[in-house]
Amino acid sequence: MLQIKFNRSHNQLAASSNTANRSLKADDALLLVAASEGDSNMLYAVGFFVPDPFIFFQHKKKKYVVMSDLELDRAKRQATVDQVLSLSGYQRKLRKAGSPATMIGILELLFRERGIRSLRVPANFSALLADQLRAKGFNLEVMPDPFFPEREIKRAQEVRHITESLRVAKLGLNAGIRMLKRTESRPDGYLYLNGSKLTSETLKTAVNTTIMAQGWLPSHTIISSGNQCVDPHHEGTGPIKANTSIIFDIFPRSQKNGYFGDLSRTVVRGRASDKLKKIYSTVQAGQKIGFDLIRDGLNGREVHQKILDLFAREGFPTGQIKGRMQGFFHGTGHGLGLDIHEAPRIAPVDATLKSGHVVTVEPGLYYLGIGGVRLEDVVLVTDKGNKNLTDCPQFLEI
Amino acid sequence: MLQIKFNRSHNQLAASSNTANRSLKADDALLLVAASEGDSNMLYAVGFFVPDPFIFFQHKKKKYVVMSDLELDRAKRQATVDQVLSLSGYQRKLRKAGSPATMIGILELLFRERGIRSLRVPANFSALLADQLRAKGFNLEVMPDPFFPEREIKRAQEVRHITESLRVAKLGLNAGIRMLKRTESRPDGYLYLNGSKLTSETLKTAVNTTIMAQGWLPSHTIISSGNQCVDPHHEGTGPIKANTSIIFDIFPRSQKNGYFGDLSRTVVRGRASDKLKKIYSTVQAGQKIGFDLIRDGLNGREVHQKILDLFAREGFPTGQIKGRMQGFFHGTGHGLGLDIHEAPRIAPVDATLKSGHVVTVEPGLYYLGIGGVRLEDVVLVTDKGNKNLTDCPQFLEI
Repeated sequence: MLQIKFNRSHNQLAASSNTANRSLKADDALLLVAASEGDSNMLYAVGFFVPDPFIFFQHKKKKYVVMSDLELDRAKRQATVDQVLSLSGYQRKLRKAGSPATMIGILELLFRERGIRSLRVPANFSALLADQLRAKGFNLEVMPDPFFPEREIKRAQEVRHITESLRVAKLGLNAGIRMLKRTESRPDGYLYLNGSKLTSETLKTAVNTTIMAQGWLPSHTIISSGNQCVDPHHEGTGPIKANTSIIFDIFPRSQKNGYFGDLSRTVVRGRASDKLKKIYSTVQAGQKIGFDLIRDGLNGREVHQKILDLFAREGFPTGQIKGRMQGFFHGTGHGLGLDIHEAPRIAPVDATLKSGHVVTVEPGLYYLGIGGVRLEDVVLVTDKGNKNLTDCPQFLEI
Repeated sequence: MLQIKFNRSHNQLAASSNTANRSLKADDALLLVAASEGDSNMLYAVGFFVPDPFIFFQHKKKKYVVMSDLELDRAKRQATVDQVLSLSGYQRKLRKAGSPATMIGILELLFRERGIRSLRVPANFSALLADQLRAKGFNLEVMPDPFFPEREIKRAQEVRHITESLRVAKLGLNAGIRMLKRTESRPDGYLYLNGSKLTSETLKTAVNTTIMAQGWLPSHTIISSGNQCVDPHHEGTGPIKANTSIIFDIFPRSQKNGYFGDLSRTVVRGRASDKLKKIYSTVQAGQKIGFDLIRDGLNGREVHQKILDLFAREGFPTGQIKGRMQGFFHGTGHGLGLDIHEAPRIAPVDATLKSGHVVTVEPGLYYLGIGGVRLEDVVLVTDKGNKNLTDCPQFLEI
């Protein structure tokens, strides 16, 4: 799923913070308070899904979670930490001491017991808890992203999880393609399935239920057609015409381990215009630049610029046309893992690719009246180049 | 979906903050920086889904969003705000002034232009941005939850959205029940479907694909059986036996508007033990206490305590038994809306119910060796009582 430019501000935000002095002092602790279902740093830290917020901290190379009685047993079995502490135990201690068993009370007790005075928290840490911890005298340092820099470099198992999610994305895509192949076009220009106009919604049902049946979660799948494609975050709605571009952008998340797949393909049911065919082959050529260049040490900005240059040379400029952004106006790629969009980016920002990065390569071209094309594969960056983790053919007309 | 006790700490955290002096001064602005897909305050504020973080602020009763070029058109059509500002416009202004177009730079420019010096942000606001705003001289007040107190009181349209999501939850449940009815039990004690052991995973596929086909997102559906039920957050896994409790806890979210449904039912394929039947009717009686008592002005703690008392009188105590929490050890209910768990709670904490609250009523009883029962309906609190929004029968044996 393409990433819009706004996130650049976030990256620059991080880059502009003082990251030089990040060496962890021995007595500093890392602290997270979040639900692992909604926070990918927490999921990375503990390795299992919990729907409600809880405490994780890391001190002197040991990892701890503080769990309610309800989650204690599951945490002991599943959490990838050194020690599971009992929340109710700390609540009882506080009440015995006549203090309310609040979150801040529990944190204070936890850290005082261990002589911890300095805490490092992620950028998205609760501003309220941050204020409360400082009011209690803790030295709190808010770290710019990435909080766990090692998250960028995928371990072999993480690569397998992502590859598996890509396989499921492809199953979903294939269900959509199969449905499209069962449609007929009528003189009104629309595609019909079993006598009714085929809609984006019907196609999404085919794709999403196929993915769901595998146990993956397909949220906000994009299946847009025609001019809808020119708004790349348009999820797609309504009837679909024959002979026009249909973009599938499918990013299922495993409900077991949380890793995403991310796959985009563009097809036409019927015949594509010559212009659209030219756009399609140009986007393919743009993607090939990515496949050819991406390797350890490369600056993502360079790849992105070379693709833009190719597109311009081929007659496909990027910019405002009749008040609308057209051309190639999103990033070439983004990191993929426990977040659908994570570092590094391949975009008009400096970002050095490293072995172990897993990134999308998804150039696109979008013009009103012609349609849009986006092709997205996922590659693992290696010392010598990259390995395409996506095993899915590309074809335009079906 | 039941809420574990840990959140009590969050509620107490909020309660312990100074909420007395919350009247908004005329020049204060409310500020959110978040993706509306992941942050329900943002979704409430703008009414449409955006996958990446953006800026919302409210000043002198006017609401603003700052959107990237990609989202500008969609925001103008869909966002429930007074003005849509262009992110790239502010980025250009900053670059012209020789400043980096960072998030903090944009926020500073936005607020200086409007003479805004004081900002109110939610508890989950980024601690990093909070630090940066204060460093720029802004007076930042971090508000305890709820940031939008009006979110607790559901408008008629919100009640309709929740009711619709409950209808979809019921469709999912029915798909599971239908599948169960097609199973046979064999001498090994397990249920078989088409010659294979029926698993929680297979049942979830039936439930979740049915929900997905409606366009709703069924994440982390719980279908657990037997002793798994005694760990109420256990999502359920593996083969299911005949004559044992099977808990369905289904909470689909609309992908159009973000509102959740939440439905739990417990069934047995085959014959329930007398003990399990007694538990089932006792949980029903507990739920009836909720239906009978809940009305504007009632303290949720009172309902919860009365249900606990009934359970104890009927011979079903709550507490540690053989090192495991057993009995009724989660809340009676929670608010439901854009979050699966929101205020108010019906639990061992003070919380006055008000007309317009939409809350779950979901007592449960869980004992090792017997199984678990949870029954969950959703009601709208009214001046005179409450209205059950769930239209779904209750039966144990199928």
